[in-house]
Amino acid sequence: MVAEALTPERILEATEDVLRRYGLGKATVVDVARALGVSHGSVYRHFRTKAALREAVTQRWLDRTSERLAPVADGSGPAEDRLDRWLKGLFEAKRHKAGDDPELFATYSVLTGDLSAVVERHIGDLVGQLARIIEDGRREGVFAKELIGGNADTARAIFHATARFHDPAYAAEWSRPGTDEDFTAVRTLILRGLRS
Amino acid sequence: MVAEALTPERILEATEDVLRRYGLGKATVVDVARALGVSHGSVYRHFRTKAALREAVTQRWLDRTSERLAPVADGSGPAEDRLDRWLKGLFEAKRHKAGDDPELFATYSVLTGDLSAVVERHIGDLVGQLARIIEDGRREGVFAKELIGGNADTARAIFHATARFHDPAYAAEWSRPGTDEDFTAVRTLILRGLRS
Repeated sequence: MVAEALTPERILEATEDVLRRYGLGKATVVDVARALGVSHGSVYRHFRTKAALREAVTQRWLDRTSERLAPVADGSGPAEDRLDRWLKGLFEAKRHKAGDDPELFATYSVLTGDLSAVVERHIGDLVGQLARIIEDGRREGVFAKELIGGNADTARAIFHATARFHDPAYAAEWSRPGTDEDFTAVRTLILRGLRS
Repeated sequence: MVAEALTPERILEATEDVLRRYGLGKATVVDVARALGVSHGSVYRHFRTKAALREAVTQRWLDRTSERLAPVADGSGPAEDRLDRWLKGLFEAKRHKAGDDPELFATYSVLTGDLSAVVERHIGDLVGQLARIIEDGRREGVFAKELIGGNADTARAIFHATARFHDPAYAAEWSRPGTDEDFTAVRTLILRGLRS
């Protein structure tokens, strides 16, 4: 059997598996090394500390959401439709993460609570995507130009106004009956507010 | 000295004082009785259990916010202006509660976490106030009639879209620089979305 090259991506994949199996309190770098069949020194060559490994695996978890939404943000088609799909896509992605594997979601919620810089960067990525859709909509003449301020300010306002439907703090509410109707109502209000 | 009559309101006032002084873990009905100079039996005549007393004091704490906003909801003047003042008033009230006495705020946050029925009722009161402003605005012809659904649905959407600026889960964000600008941007977006 030829050993696969030990890449950062393989280490992060194994780290997520270990977090899923043991939980945050018990997962160690030695567990990650063992799962990969390598020494813990080999893991440390890629991630200098346990903290660096945790930060990288959290970043990867968050990036999965923004990568999923990038094609909608940077795709073609009317901006209004893309904005609606983007907001729905964000909620879907978060809701899946929370519902499909609640324990892993809880583990990452603890991690993100301790890693505010990583979270800030993630929010920056998402708001940046939104801002590009707003920019397109203004160019099309569909979204009002004078509204609120620059594209980034408007994007931020939309992100805040939909917090209930993407902020993990609300995860417990997402499975309640009526949530989809509530979300549609908020999106309708926002889309109306954007129109020129 | 003539003893003041022991009213539920006096008991609740003393209960809040005791919660402020001792915190949730240590506050007892005996402490409340002692603060009032009465037997704990006298307290139990008004509130049958410690749980009932906690529920009532939490309800009173939440009611203070809705009572403060009622004059704006039920007052006169253009609905659009009242809506903006109501949203600002709600944020101000919550921010004051969080900032003026952080420990008492934290105590009530734990209490509300355990008393979902009391919180639901409080949210119902607030959404009801908002719905009355929406109704007025539609009668004036300033707010779009076809939007989202009935007045209550629209009110609920506004309440959700402003969660970041009244939900205690966000209290830690409220003192950050830029919060007022963020809130203004969300209100602008919502008010635009409501217009006919």
